[in-house]
Amino acid sequence: MKKPIRIGLVGSGFMGRTHALGFRSVGAVFDLPLEPVLELLADATQELAAGAAARYGFARAVGDWHALVDDPAVDVVDITAPNKLHAPISLAALALGKPVYCEKPLAPTADEALAMAMAAERAGVVTQVGFNYICNPMLALAREMIEAGELGQIWGFRGIHAEDFMISRRSPWTWRLDPAGGAGAIADIGSHIIGMARFLLGPIDALIADMETVIDRRPLAGRPEEMRAVEVDDQARLLVRFARGCRGTIETSWLSSGRKMQLEFEVIGEKGALVFSQERFNELHYYKVEADGTRNGFRTICAGPEHPPYGAFCIAGGHQIGFNDLKVIEIRNFLTALAGGPKPFADFREAYEVQRVIDAALLSSREERWVRL
Amino acid sequence: MKKPIRIGLVGSGFMGRTHALGFRSVGAVFDLPLEPVLELLADATQELAAGAAARYGFARAVGDWHALVDDPAVDVVDITAPNKLHAPISLAALALGKPVYCEKPLAPTADEALAMAMAAERAGVVTQVGFNYICNPMLALAREMIEAGELGQIWGFRGIHAEDFMISRRSPWTWRLDPAGGAGAIADIGSHIIGMARFLLGPIDALIADMETVIDRRPLAGRPEEMRAVEVDDQARLLVRFARGCRGTIETSWLSSGRKMQLEFEVIGEKGALVFSQERFNELHYYKVEADGTRNGFRTICAGPEHPPYGAFCIAGGHQIGFNDLKVIEIRNFLTALAGGPKPFADFREAYEVQRVIDAALLSSREERWVRL
Amino acid sequence: MKKPIRIGLVGSGFMGRTHALGFRSVGAVFDLPLEPVLELLADATQELAAGAAARYGFARAVGDWHALVDDPAVDVVDITAPNKLHAPISLAALALGKPVYCEKPLAPTADEALAMAMAAERAGVVTQVGFNYICNPMLALAREMIEAGELGQIWGFRGIHAEDFMISRRSPWTWRLDPAGGAGAIADIGSHIIGMARFLLGPIDALIADMETVIDRRPLAGRPEEMRAVEVDDQARLLVRFARGCRGTIETSWLSSGRKMQLEFEVIGEKGALVFSQERFNELHYYKVEADGTRNGFRTICAGPEHPPYGAFCIAGGHQIGFNDLKVIEIRNFLTALAGGPKPFADFREAYEVQRVIDAALLSSREERWVRL
Amino acid sequence: MKKPIRIGLVGSGFMGRTHALGFRSVGAVFDLPLEPVLELLADATQELAAGAAARYGFARAVGDWHALVDDPAVDVVDITAPNKLHAPISLAALALGKPVYCEKPLAPTADEALAMAMAAERAGVVTQVGFNYICNPMLALAREMIEAGELGQIWGFRGIHAEDFMISRRSPWTWRLDPAGGAGAIADIGSHIIGMARFLLGPIDALIADMETVIDRRPLAGRPEEMRAVEVDDQARLLVRFARGCRGTIETSWLSSGRKMQLEFEVIGEKGALVFSQERFNELHYYKVEADGTRNGFRTICAGPEHPPYGAFCIAGGHQIGFNDLKVIEIRNFLTALAGGPKPFADFREAYEVQRVIDAALLSSREERWVRL
Repeated sequence: MKKPIRIGLVGSGFMGRTHALGFRSVGAVFDLPLEPVLELLADATQELAAGAAARYGFARAVGDWHALVDDPAVDVVDITAPNKLHAPISLAALALGKPVYCEKPLAPTADEALAMAMAAERAGVVTQVGFNYICNPMLALAREMIEAGELGQIWGFRGIHAEDFMISRRSPWTWRLDPAGGAGAIADIGSHIIGMARFLLGPIDALIADMETVIDRRPLAGRPEEMRAVEVDDQARLLVRFARGCRGTIETSWLSSGRKMQLEFEVIGEKGALVFSQERFNELHYYKVEADGTRNGFRTICAGPEHPPYGAFCIAGGHQIGFNDLKVIEIRNFLTALAGGPKPFADFREAYEVQRVIDAALLSSREERWVRL
Repeated sequence: MKKPIRIGLVGSGFMGRTHALGFRSVGAVFDLPLEPVLELLADATQELAAGAAARYGFARAVGDWHALVDDPAVDVVDITAPNKLHAPISLAALALGKPVYCEKPLAPTADEALAMAMAAERAGVVTQVGFNYICNPMLALAREMIEAGELGQIWGFRGIHAEDFMISRRSPWTWRLDPAGGAGAIADIGSHIIGMARFLLGPIDALIADMETVIDRRPLAGRPEEMRAVEVDDQARLLVRFARGCRGTIETSWLSSGRKMQLEFEVIGEKGALVFSQERFNELHYYKVEADGTRNGFRTICAGPEHPPYGAFCIAGGHQIGFNDLKVIEIRNFLTALAGGPKPFADFREAYEVQRVIDAALLSSREERWVRL
Repeated sequence: MKKPIRIGLVGSGFMGRTHALGFRSVGAVFDLPLEPVLELLADATQELAAGAAARYGFARAVGDWHALVDDPAVDVVDITAPNKLHAPISLAALALGKPVYCEKPLAPTADEALAMAMAAERAGVVTQVGFNYICNPMLALAREMIEAGELGQIWGFRGIHAEDFMISRRSPWTWRLDPAGGAGAIADIGSHIIGMARFLLGPIDALIADMETVIDRRPLAGRPEEMRAVEVDDQARLLVRFARGCRGTIETSWLSSGRKMQLEFEVIGEKGALVFSQERFNELHYYKVEADGTRNGFRTICAGPEHPPYGAFCIAGGHQIGFNDLKVIEIRNFLTALAGGPKPFADFREAYEVQRVIDAALLSSREERWVRL
Repeated sequence: MKKPIRIGLVGSGFMGRTHALGFRSVGAVFDLPLEPVLELLADATQELAAGAAARYGFARAVGDWHALVDDPAVDVVDITAPNKLHAPISLAALALGKPVYCEKPLAPTADEALAMAMAAERAGVVTQVGFNYICNPMLALAREMIEAGELGQIWGFRGIHAEDFMISRRSPWTWRLDPAGGAGAIADIGSHIIGMARFLLGPIDALIADMETVIDRRPLAGRPEEMRAVEVDDQARLLVRFARGCRGTIETSWLSSGRKMQLEFEVIGEKGALVFSQERFNELHYYKVEADGTRNGFRTICAGPEHPPYGAFCIAGGHQIGFNDLKVIEIRNFLTALAGGPKPFADFREAYEVQRVIDAALLSSREERWVRL
């Protein structure tokens, strides 16, 4: 008999629903010691919360996140609320010794993220941050290959996360553009490629960044004649150096025409190279240096059951897992850790490290100089 | 308040689990009038059924499919049992007026499939067969474009479904090779591309087929020194003519080295062309004939919320839905029909039509001549 | 000191110029015992011939091909004249014991091609037909791999040559559509994929074809209000069986929207597969069956100096040779044979064999039955 | 009657042969007022020169470049000699008022390149430097689209030129690694992407670079036990700002495993984007921002006669031009300028500007700071 673990979810937007879907599915996909129970959903009002709870299958609803955190029937707090609430909700939950699963970005600055990470470590509980793209079986393969030395000494990294959802000048000013929330594109999407770079190659210890606001005024939502200044970055370009010795570039933009999910990297090593694109995330491109070049070239590895945990979703290769399945894997990782297994890669400490890179990039770009981390 | 609809699932293998996952998720993905309830699961023994019921979240279990069909608490019968049971279970359920959702292939021969389709029509209930690949939003787009005349008059079709899972001569003889179950590769996977051809372009009214058994003996499972003759097709190649006037080719093989899910088509029309591959099923490649060719070429359309029902899974393009999500869409279609909406494309009648093509191919290949349907 | 060999070129259109370019370059690309001399160019009139001779660098010009053939200063006759002249010019040259290099298609029917091949064999001279696509270094690699058994037993072939240059209904009636010239698309472009299939896998010994005229009337050139019936095929689809035992499909169309040079094949074997497209002809895609699938997939082999004779054009990989370079290789092959080296793959006999397949396809399609060759 | 122009070629290695091939072909490809005559070839010794002259078709040979420059029968001096000779030969030729066509890199430092550019300007003669990749018809299209505003305001550039020919630690120390010759990878191949960036978007006015020597010792050729220190860059990564206002990245490496010709760029604009790779240089990928995204995506434009001067090589699209054809176009540009037409894009002044960027990168990397040009 599996032990139930009662989930309290704060936030019921797109990402809240994605979490709910993951909790609903995870038990049938993976054989886990814990069985998640959709116990309580909180949103800004009781009405909003109740509607979402019905849709997503939560047993109860509440209009106040404090009540959710304090609720003794909630074992775990799951946060998909607006970014500025990540810290207060997390800190309240951690103070009660409750594990926390929080969406990225963890906090607008590294200082706040550090405070959260330290609170988690004091509490000694499991935390996890939603860098779900690294839960991809092909990313696990890439990391395994790098760590096993299959690429030899690593000589270079090229990473990018570019999309085009802010490309229109008529796209209104939103919370994503609020400088109180931290950086712009580099925080919103760039954090994914920074986290991925760290997942694959470890810490970045120096960087220089060039960030820019391209569309410097945007209309207010619903009041298109009123314009508000944009202060955060639309685009960021970084030269980075990893502590392991290799160097690389990282770029991010939410103004990249035609790009829907250009989260891509190339890892170049002496014995081989890997190329990946999130737009085709069930593939990994691999070049193996061979003495005989006549039959050699980049090969397209197609995700299959030989790439765990793909097989938990489908018994045959080439069928493809989807975005929501990455979230299921993330939740599997979290539940596994809660049951005493290895802690997730992207815990609060990791999210702090990602935020440090972002803060360093902001400083570097402002002062136009290299910054050591 | 949504109306509950109680599901009885027969079979708990890979496909049974995929159905269970779909029923667990569908209510949080789509806003439907019916709420599926995982009521009863049947498998060959009570023990097998009970284990799967616990894993997948069914309330009860039973070791006999007859009991499931007869159970008054089961509103709908869902069949993922071995192929030879499709007909008896379906007919029993239909006799009780219960809707049936059955995996493909519906039956080993067109005659049996027709009997099932007629029983369903007499019963006047909803049926659905698991041709889930056509539930892809990009397939809906392809069909919409064809029907709207965006490709102009259709001049050609090229379809294939090739995989390599039978490529090893050491792969044992299995039920897939049992001639009592019907054809080989053309039934097992070729039915998908036949169904897709019909979905896009309508009925095929003539064909000539060349089918072959390449590996004509395979070892018995667990007794590798004993060989059993293979009588069904490993590969089939067809020239086809559609009732609408265009012609094309259809191929299938389960011996195609390196191919994991080469379910592909090209539709060629006077004003444009579409190219699709299931290995990258969140994409559709489109060429639009334009007067000025200088900036023209095949374009890669990337699935996004503008391609319903992609948006029910994710609010942004490029994130990708997965194989299991196609099943969720299929279940959405089924539940929508149960609630009085449009009937699914692939009902028992459609599965019979696919089977007719397969039977005609067998006849054509045996007699080495064109066959009119 | 290299021995000069004096070329007489009949025809000065696009293909004539391509031949001239090849003869001008070949000596600097390859180290050959013979040095071609651009001796004489013939076209329909002295004026046409003189203009082209000046542009292409021929020493002399003549308005009558008979004079060229008879000219004692012409050692080799090179034919890029209209198709209907291929036979008379070739036969005249062969009667004088002169080697002949002739563009494809050699003749409108297999009977005529056979007569030409027999004349060549009686004369005991070198002949070559312009199936230049098989002169690609990546095709040489493909054939070498197949012959060396690297793909194991061959299980299947899929070939196509599709373009879209006849897609417009306003494209006028041309000599390509003249039934006196033989077949339509299957002769004009399909001959390339038939020849390629033979180059890779040897003789085809049975086929069934489905050919169709899609646009059955076209305007006369310059008189768009007058329509002329089209009798030759716009599209052809074949099921084929090779003498070596494997089977496959071959398709051709000049109505394939968006396709500029879709000369493609897939060769499937027990130990591997090859995929090729002329639109990216400096690449060959190769899948090698391996016990460990975790790092396996189709690899893109990029043409380089390790793939002879690429290195004669460029010392580094990835730089790419072009269409005209394929012609240079073809001319190298011809000159090498003239100097006593191995005879070219595509001589008159080979062109006859290709034509036999085309004739069989015409018969098969007309009588709707399998034809044995 | 075309006017002859007598070419004196210095250097007979791979690039010398490529030039010879170009001069042999150009008159049959393009209709030009000048007809190049292969007059004189110089190399280090009379013997070397005579052998090459015979192979490439030059009338005469000489063992001393001074004699070639001074020869009154030489109208134009073409330099493919080792890099360190570029300046003396060029200056000698320019002093005599002879036009110069010189391979890249023009000089090891910007100062020397400037002296050469100024000498050319004083002489008032045509010069051209061998940045042949920008002679690609698809590059002409890209520039035309940018200049016509089809991409709207340009927001970003990402460029790279990576190869792997120096990847082996056993590859010996060569002249490419001689610091007296200037920089390493950034000069040898990076100059191509810098030149391409300038061709497309104009001057770069600020940059920061991070350059590194990865393999810091290499064996001497023929004496593998003796190692020599490497001082030049193996890899360089730059953040750049263009005078026109947009920013970007430029990378180069000759250690990039698996990359044979990764000369690539992406130009991102408000109304569209272009993506290009030299490994498939007959293609240009174009995204056009459209109001309706349902049928939109990156399209693959395939080079054809509608993209001048492709049509001079082949009358049909998709056939592909090759590396040597790019050189033919470059020579066409040079001869056209000699006949009074527009001057080539990459003259000595342009080569100086490219060299300035390289020098600035060296300074920036050494001092770890932004450098304004």
